[in-house]
Amino acid sequence: MNITILGCHSASPHEHKNPTAQLLDIKGHRLLIDCGEGTQVQLRKAKASFVHIKHIFISHLHGDHFYGLPGLISSFRLLGREAPLHVYGPKGIKDAITLLLKLANSWTNFPLHFHELSSKKSALIFEDEHVQVHTIPLIHRVYTNGFLFVEKAGNRRINKEAIKKYTIDKSQFRLLQLGKDVVDNEGKTILNKLLTLNPHQPKKYAYCSDTAYNPAMIPLIKGVDLLYHESTFLQQHEQLATQTQHSTAQQAAKIARDAEVGKLILGHYSSRYKDLSIFKDEAQQFFPNIVLASDGLQIS
Amino acid sequence: MNITILGCHSASPHEHKNPTAQLLDIKGHRLLIDCGEGTQVQLRKAKASFVHIKHIFISHLHGDHFYGLPGLISSFRLLGREAPLHVYGPKGIKDAITLLLKLANSWTNFPLHFHELSSKKSALIFEDEHVQVHTIPLIHRVYTNGFLFVEKAGNRRINKEAIKKYTIDKSQFRLLQLGKDVVDNEGKTILNKLLTLNPHQPKKYAYCSDTAYNPAMIPLIKGVDLLYHESTFLQQHEQLATQTQHSTAQQAAKIARDAEVGKLILGHYSSRYKDLSIFKDEAQQFFPNIVLASDGLQIS
Repeated sequence: MNITILGCHSASPHEHKNPTAQLLDIKGHRLLIDCGEGTQVQLRKAKASFVHIKHIFISHLHGDHFYGLPGLISSFRLLGREAPLHVYGPKGIKDAITLLLKLANSWTNFPLHFHELSSKKSALIFEDEHVQVHTIPLIHRVYTNGFLFVEKAGNRRINKEAIKKYTIDKSQFRLLQLGKDVVDNEGKTILNKLLTLNPHQPKKYAYCSDTAYNPAMIPLIKGVDLLYHESTFLQQHEQLATQTQHSTAQQAAKIARDAEVGKLILGHYSSRYKDLSIFKDEAQQFFPNIVLASDGLQIS
Repeated sequence: MNITILGCHSASPHEHKNPTAQLLDIKGHRLLIDCGEGTQVQLRKAKASFVHIKHIFISHLHGDHFYGLPGLISSFRLLGREAPLHVYGPKGIKDAITLLLKLANSWTNFPLHFHELSSKKSALIFEDEHVQVHTIPLIHRVYTNGFLFVEKAGNRRINKEAIKKYTIDKSQFRLLQLGKDVVDNEGKTILNKLLTLNPHQPKKYAYCSDTAYNPAMIPLIKGVDLLYHESTFLQQHEQLATQTQHSTAQQAAKIARDAEVGKLILGHYSSRYKDLSIFKDEAQQFFPNIVLASDGLQIS
């Protein structure tokens, strides 16, 4: 699982401060999370192939999370995309995009599917053989969801050292990966557990932006490997955070601590702050393992 | 009259290729022409004060001329704007912006006036003491207007050398600027023409993008000082220009020649071309005085 932070700043875009977007790579799936203005330029900078993005998840319909989507969809069309595109987001997103395409008299030449969300309870919204995506209801000024990405367990892994001791034909490797015992070249059955290792531990990533401090999300994100939690404000502006339904760095850290996550990424910084290192300093009073998001940052 | 090219590339935005937007400064008026994705970042780079933009003119509702507008309007709100904003553009623009603001649950806290255009004939759409703005009907895949900006004649100018010969009190300078005769300190009437120079010649700027080759615009832009005419394609792709209702550099130059304009700016380049100097070379076969638009270019 690889995450590229395409933008991690709140509100208006600036030259080196892009609004929210992230690209998540899970076993060859490219999932885009939010799409602020300029996201397509950020994707180009990250040298990410547009055509491999098949699923886009929009948390809420504030401009800094969404106003890059009409342009990205137009660019998909200009690039001759044929693969279907699935967009998950709050009710209303279909009307907005459809109206803009209609006014431009340029409907897409690829299937464009909208999955509109309106439930205030966590729901499984996408699943295939590699990944599950669940919503995480958040508290903000408009209807907002975070997203929980859960990798599925992979195959058993061939133990390269162990297998040297036997005469196993390569045609049998697929059976080994699927957990089956196999027969060696002398006709003798070899137990799977002698030849394979457990699958890699599947990873979980929770994305929570934008939200007021919301302990109700803790059971949903308990024990995830990685949590992105917005931290628009520093402690001195806690009241402003409450008022605008955003979080402080310390509130994000408390959620990370109480949900016992592996690592916390902070982001969605207000443009009023010049020195972002204070976000980390303040948050580390409650949770040690913190990464400050920055535009272009890649996390494996 | 000063023009800042904020973006001059067609279709999808790239890192150093911004879609169309221009900032026009006429006697303290700041007029924004088109607003592709990323325009607000380009305005910041140009160090242009957002709050002085009171009039926005949108040629047509293709994304590369319009998808920066919702974000710019949101930023005006975040910056605490109070001054009214007037947006001129094709019918439908009000519905689109209104829907996006409604979905974000964030109506502007300043008066936002839409002036929707649907006439296929040239019309005067804005006038005050300094400037007139007329539409220039263009031929494109959707309803599109260019815009003709006509400065009004200024005041007569005090002749600093001539006035030294008389004893004229400074309180009378305003009368001189308005063309009146004045009385000197000895009670003698002095004719205005002895003390003043003619006003600066008022300038005309015509903006024509996007459009197929369209000689019908020539009477409307006859003799303008400066013409921006799109040139999406080079000569080798003339057929593609016809098909997509765009122009080649040579077609733009023919319009400039036949309209007897002072200077031609080329722009709206297709991203397929690496060497933009060929646009100038091809166009100069028909019209000599050519400037290639580039993002950030300022023209006085």
